[in-house]
Amino acid sequence: MTDRPNLPLAGVTVIDLGQIYQGPYATMLMAKAGADVIKVEPPNGEPIRARTKVGRHAALPLAMLNSNKRAVTLNLKTEQGRALLKRMVARADVLLENFAPGVMDRLGIGWDVLQEVNPRLVYASGTGYGLSGPDRDSLAMDLTVQAASGVMSVTGFPDGPPTKAGPAVVDFLGGIHLYAAVLTALYERHFTGRGRLVEVAMQETVYPTLASNLGFAYKTGGEVPPRTGNRHGGLATAPYNVYPAKDGHVAVICVVEAHWTALLDAMERPELKDDPRFVDNAHRVANMADTDALVQSWTERLTRDEVFATARRHRVPCAPVRNLIEVMNDKHMHGRGMLEWIDHPEVGRIVVPNSPLRFHGADRVATLPSPRLGEHNAEIYGGWLGLTDAEIAALREAGTIT
Amino acid sequence: MTDRPNLPLAGVTVIDLGQIYQGPYATMLMAKAGADVIKVEPPNGEPIRARTKVGRHAALPLAMLNSNKRAVTLNLKTEQGRALLKRMVARADVLLENFAPGVMDRLGIGWDVLQEVNPRLVYASGTGYGLSGPDRDSLAMDLTVQAASGVMSVTGFPDGPPTKAGPAVVDFLGGIHLYAAVLTALYERHFTGRGRLVEVAMQETVYPTLASNLGFAYKTGGEVPPRTGNRHGGLATAPYNVYPAKDGHVAVICVVEAHWTALLDAMERPELKDDPRFVDNAHRVANMADTDALVQSWTERLTRDEVFATARRHRVPCAPVRNLIEVMNDKHMHGRGMLEWIDHPEVGRIVVPNSPLRFHGADRVATLPSPRLGEHNAEIYGGWLGLTDAEIAALREAGTIT
Repeated sequence: MTDRPNLPLAGVTVIDLGQIYQGPYATMLMAKAGADVIKVEPPNGEPIRARTKVGRHAALPLAMLNSNKRAVTLNLKTEQGRALLKRMVARADVLLENFAPGVMDRLGIGWDVLQEVNPRLVYASGTGYGLSGPDRDSLAMDLTVQAASGVMSVTGFPDGPPTKAGPAVVDFLGGIHLYAAVLTALYERHFTGRGRLVEVAMQETVYPTLASNLGFAYKTGGEVPPRTGNRHGGLATAPYNVYPAKDGHVAVICVVEAHWTALLDAMERPELKDDPRFVDNAHRVANMADTDALVQSWTERLTRDEVFATARRHRVPCAPVRNLIEVMNDKHMHGRGMLEWIDHPEVGRIVVPNSPLRFHGADRVATLPSPRLGEHNAEIYGGWLGLTDAEIAALREAGTIT
Repeated sequence: MTDRPNLPLAGVTVIDLGQIYQGPYATMLMAKAGADVIKVEPPNGEPIRARTKVGRHAALPLAMLNSNKRAVTLNLKTEQGRALLKRMVARADVLLENFAPGVMDRLGIGWDVLQEVNPRLVYASGTGYGLSGPDRDSLAMDLTVQAASGVMSVTGFPDGPPTKAGPAVVDFLGGIHLYAAVLTALYERHFTGRGRLVEVAMQETVYPTLASNLGFAYKTGGEVPPRTGNRHGGLATAPYNVYPAKDGHVAVICVVEAHWTALLDAMERPELKDDPRFVDNAHRVANMADTDALVQSWTERLTRDEVFATARRHRVPCAPVRNLIEVMNDKHMHGRGMLEWIDHPEVGRIVVPNSPLRFHGADRVATLPSPRLGEHNAEIYGGWLGLTDAEIAALREAGTIT
């Protein structure tokens, strides 16, 4: 047994061509698990860097999703640039990209070419609709895939328009599935000695999440699942809703009968335990408006915290609806190390996330701020690849690197 | 090199105590990648089976998320049952559960105990808030974690209430992150020879997805990120919205200037290329109402398909908002094998998803319908563990198995 660092992905080298959210999230998780992630960007930076120039909006997402990576610039539209990429790939375990299908192939650095350079390479492709099929070339962003995949159709209220999920859930479902596929191929590689092309289509990662909503179609013999507001996606559970409190909102859900009887106790309405309208879930579902009105008549007289504390005491599933400033400052997540204040040299004092993947007993990778554009060119091209100063200068002059 | 099956997770045995969505999704992906997944349920079945009795609603989710598993019953509240679990764990690679924190420990079959039974075991825990911290024991379901994690605060319209994402995105983000953590530990095990306790808290998997929304707080120096309807979560991009068509809705987004000029061409309004209101993204954002009104004046005169076809021709990112019957029948996903019609013995003719994790060149695991409760008791207890018929009969009599 060698002195392997106590980090799950120690020794794994990742060439990260990811852009915006999907790719960068996957590779950040790899970095947080101990991998050496090299973020390779065009000379002007990956697209999200451009957005930091228009106001300061995207500076935070960039900083949130690129901690613990080293960054180089590389012009892949030049022959020299592609040759350098191949030299990096020869020494790497993983290459990950979330370009549109065909981009890497047209540059002559797709899977077919790179697997010859390094048969042990795991090549990860993240796209909107996948590398095959009639919709392959549809331009894919989180918004459009939310539309095409069904998310919008079942989000929002019956009397309102289809609504997007506020967070970019599709991008991130895509990203974590891509991480999952890479690790599966790395696991397999121990046995086979060979890499694989692994692929994730964002649209496909959405489909399983629609389980409750699709259950409605099944239950009704094929009706179009509706928007249900804050009610159960299949309209099969009650109470299940978001209720107004004096100073905000709370979510309340009863999954088993014990939750309901406990809720009646919490609301000081134990006499309703025999009320035929509410006597079991099926009846509460049939009388959903009355069920919701009953719960609301309790919550609206109290603050969020009062409702939550009382529900908690009675073991009724409940949570306050929190805004993002509250979430960003959440003591629980900060205490667990999931969130962390850092002083970012470009962005300032901000909260950044660590990895939701926890490995008990492993060392923790100390958070390093996301890198500046091309910050590690000398270290990677000189130190790692062994180019001389003259060679590096020539590459800069040619615009291959910056 | 042995004759290893051409499946990434060939030879991996998973003891699946998962319930409802989070755990079962993770283990189904393992089964689809070639693992042998044994779903272990209480004598009355895991909770989602109970919901199939109340109407038929949950029959479909159960069938969607448990393909390719074998199922046994086991009463873990008995000493005999726990002893049997330990015998299974001794021969397994992974045990996965998404019970509330402490459930397994209180039964005497938590990580501490099981790692002694099998030091190579990867033990995966999926919860709402994690195994530590002040909120550890808050009851966690998709709805309540959507509330606490911030999803609801930024979903919906500014003049409407906080709204849940229609699909159970939190449950499934938790599930795929749990898969990812397991595979990371399995990868590491090749080097260390030991398993790990891996943990995922659903609330933590949500935080990164809030990147755009948190960017708003950053840009404004700390304002609470608002609900933005179908607009960009950070209100930093335009056009970015869902627009009405004659027969539905379409999502349209311009990420680079080329998209905008192409959209103007598509809308047959090339003269607006010099209109100061729309001349670049910053101006379009500043004039967001006018920008949206312009796009809507085009889309509302056309059908969804007409808008999509025209946008596609001009390479403008666009997608029709599709309902779930359309999505379920999507030719593209069926053609790619992501969706599949099967004849399920209990549920009938239904569409089930396969895995979004694609491994090019690997064999495909043929879809087997989700198992009946206890369907494989004889095969697992007799065939795999080697119990005699008399021993199995005794276990049934005692209520340890069914």
